[in-house]
Amino acid sequence: MNNDRRKFMQQSAMVSAGLTLAGPTLFANTTNNNVENNMKNIKTKGYAATDESGILSPFEFERRPVEDNDILIDVKFASICHSDIHQEKGHWGKQIYPQVPGHEIVGIVSAVGKNVTKFKVGDRAGVGCMVDSCMDCDSCQAGEEHFCDRGETKFTYGFPTEKEPTGITQGGYSNKLVVRDHFAVHIPNNITFEEAAPLLCAGITTYSPLMRAQFQVGDKVGVAGIGGLGHLAVKIAVAKGAKVYAFTTSVDKVADIKSWGVAEVIVVDDEFKNMQAYAKTLDYMISTIPYQFNVTPYVSCVKPRGSFTFVGMPEKSEITLNNLMLAFARVNFNASLIGGIPETQEVVNYCADNNIRPSIEIINAEQINDAWKKVENKEARYRYVIDAASF
Amino acid sequence: MNNDRRKFMQQSAMVSAGLTLAGPTLFANTTNNNVENNMKNIKTKGYAATDESGILSPFEFERRPVEDNDILIDVKFASICHSDIHQEKGHWGKQIYPQVPGHEIVGIVSAVGKNVTKFKVGDRAGVGCMVDSCMDCDSCQAGEEHFCDRGETKFTYGFPTEKEPTGITQGGYSNKLVVRDHFAVHIPNNITFEEAAPLLCAGITTYSPLMRAQFQVGDKVGVAGIGGLGHLAVKIAVAKGAKVYAFTTSVDKVADIKSWGVAEVIVVDDEFKNMQAYAKTLDYMISTIPYQFNVTPYVSCVKPRGSFTFVGMPEKSEITLNNLMLAFARVNFNASLIGGIPETQEVVNYCADNNIRPSIEIINAEQINDAWKKVENKEARYRYVIDAASF
Repeated sequence: MNNDRRKFMQQSAMVSAGLTLAGPTLFANTTNNNVENNMKNIKTKGYAATDESGILSPFEFERRPVEDNDILIDVKFASICHSDIHQEKGHWGKQIYPQVPGHEIVGIVSAVGKNVTKFKVGDRAGVGCMVDSCMDCDSCQAGEEHFCDRGETKFTYGFPTEKEPTGITQGGYSNKLVVRDHFAVHIPNNITFEEAAPLLCAGITTYSPLMRAQFQVGDKVGVAGIGGLGHLAVKIAVAKGAKVYAFTTSVDKVADIKSWGVAEVIVVDDEFKNMQAYAKTLDYMISTIPYQFNVTPYVSCVKPRGSFTFVGMPEKSEITLNNLMLAFARVNFNASLIGGIPETQEVVNYCADNNIRPSIEIINAEQINDAWKKVENKEARYRYVIDAASF
Repeated sequence: MNNDRRKFMQQSAMVSAGLTLAGPTLFANTTNNNVENNMKNIKTKGYAATDESGILSPFEFERRPVEDNDILIDVKFASICHSDIHQEKGHWGKQIYPQVPGHEIVGIVSAVGKNVTKFKVGDRAGVGCMVDSCMDCDSCQAGEEHFCDRGETKFTYGFPTEKEPTGITQGGYSNKLVVRDHFAVHIPNNITFEEAAPLLCAGITTYSPLMRAQFQVGDKVGVAGIGGLGHLAVKIAVAKGAKVYAFTTSVDKVADIKSWGVAEVIVVDDEFKNMQAYAKTLDYMISTIPYQFNVTPYVSCVKPRGSFTFVGMPEKSEITLNNLMLAFARVNFNASLIGGIPETQEVVNYCADNNIRPSIEIINAEQINDAWKKVENKEARYRYVIDAASF
């Protein structure tokens, strides 16, 4: 995104946040002066970054009151996504601090606004990467709220909004969350909270492009980068009947990956020599590698006229391609960004029903900083899930 | 292309060139010792670059003899492609000099090897970007000789080969050309030589991806960069029934472009402001811009799930994409490289039969250096065609 576009989107978002606030407030002032006074901010405890060091520390703050279309979630678990680290460290742009990260959030509904019919108190609910949008444009109506045509998609943390007392949306590394009902999904009873959490970002982010690829049973699907996202991509693609080829740089992940039913694990060497045997063999490939890397040897593994989807989000969001390589490979290159709310519900249900479970390690809040280091060092196996009782 | 792959391809090409030579030579030595002596090199006059200054000067050299599967073409016209300039100036890698550029070549067949049935003396023939390949692999058999699976595609100039007395293939800025018969196409009688020349690269390079895009009559097709390639892309897409949106930075091309039947001409400003109105409106877009540029505003003009093809070849062949932009745009990004021989014949026939003619200016050999400057300064209107009688 160039600066102009980024600026435009940020401005749109700011304008939209302003309008959204202005609307109900004006209404409240003219019809019921007590509405605002009756609505109490929600006291919340969490862990926040305070600067680009990305070191998190305990943070007590307030969330907006539960408004008519909102639900309050008592958070049970929140899991750690590599994106949390990128964003808090400012890799994608300057941030407002203190900022509570976390966009893989599950818990129990403890209050609902008067218009809410989607949830009732006691329901199990999950929240992913976004918490609001215009809900009115073509994209929102089509269940692609992350592509809101008006640029009003509000991402779960660090997004400037006057609706929140801290001035930004605050994420799931916390014990309470207020969210517009539409942007929470139901967590079925046949999956634990802790296993459901990673589906809210890692699950939907890989599921959405995998489904769009429309591969057939028996097709060869490559997955590059076997971390939090990649390991779910593998499990989902295997469940959907693909022959999965997993590309990793970590030798000590091989046994795990094999146990998930892949056709082959390729341990990628520095010179990509052992990838040459796979040139033009895959029907489709998804890369979850979350940093700048040499895309050529991966794209070259896809058959001509096949597709390659990039879901990792490197620093500066830049990918450098060699167009001669791309011309020779004849591969369609695209990028994918999470998924809409209906599809998020779909992946949660699919995983719950088909016994697809992320491989997780539960930690307490005080272990977050250590866990982040391990994520950066590729030591996570494969998703850290924070027990919200420890905030 | 990374260095390893480039090296591999270059080595493959060298090996293949060596084998191709060794084959007939060994055969000749054991069955007819006179074969080599009877075959005379072809004395040729042309214009060559002698270093990375890219300044061309008269050059007399020899081409290989007309072998059993070869034809000799008396060149009538050769046109100037921006690629000629890039390659001779070393923008895509180090070159061997003296090197005669030119890969849009037309003329009359003046000799044929004994196995040749495709042409007879007196036929009108054209040669584009390649002059040989293995002819045996799946890609070659499928008419995609430019994607020879064995990496044996020989490009028309500057390609190392022991078959040529100068050690490299030498291009069409010359009065004679020896080429394997399969790699020449027929030039129909209903198009002039000078108008046919640009079809051999600019025509096929835009026709091939436009056909692959499978747009429907009435679909909105964008063409970015209205030079030698772009102006043919416009004319072909209009002829195929598309509503064409032409994006140019040259105000003084607007009248020309409108005369070709486009729906709209957009004069792109430095800040891409007037492109915003076209966001997500095009079914397909092809870019012929032959240098590094900000891809984002162009890709953003394509509808979600549409495709964008890149056929320009910038310095270093690098394109930098913003993957967040690509994710938001939901566009399939691909690159395309010329086209195969059957499709080259197809585009020549299609243009001949449907009155699609490049807009050309005929020049003499001594005007080439000046014409190159004009191409670089976007002053070409729209293809310079060299009269080979002036070599």
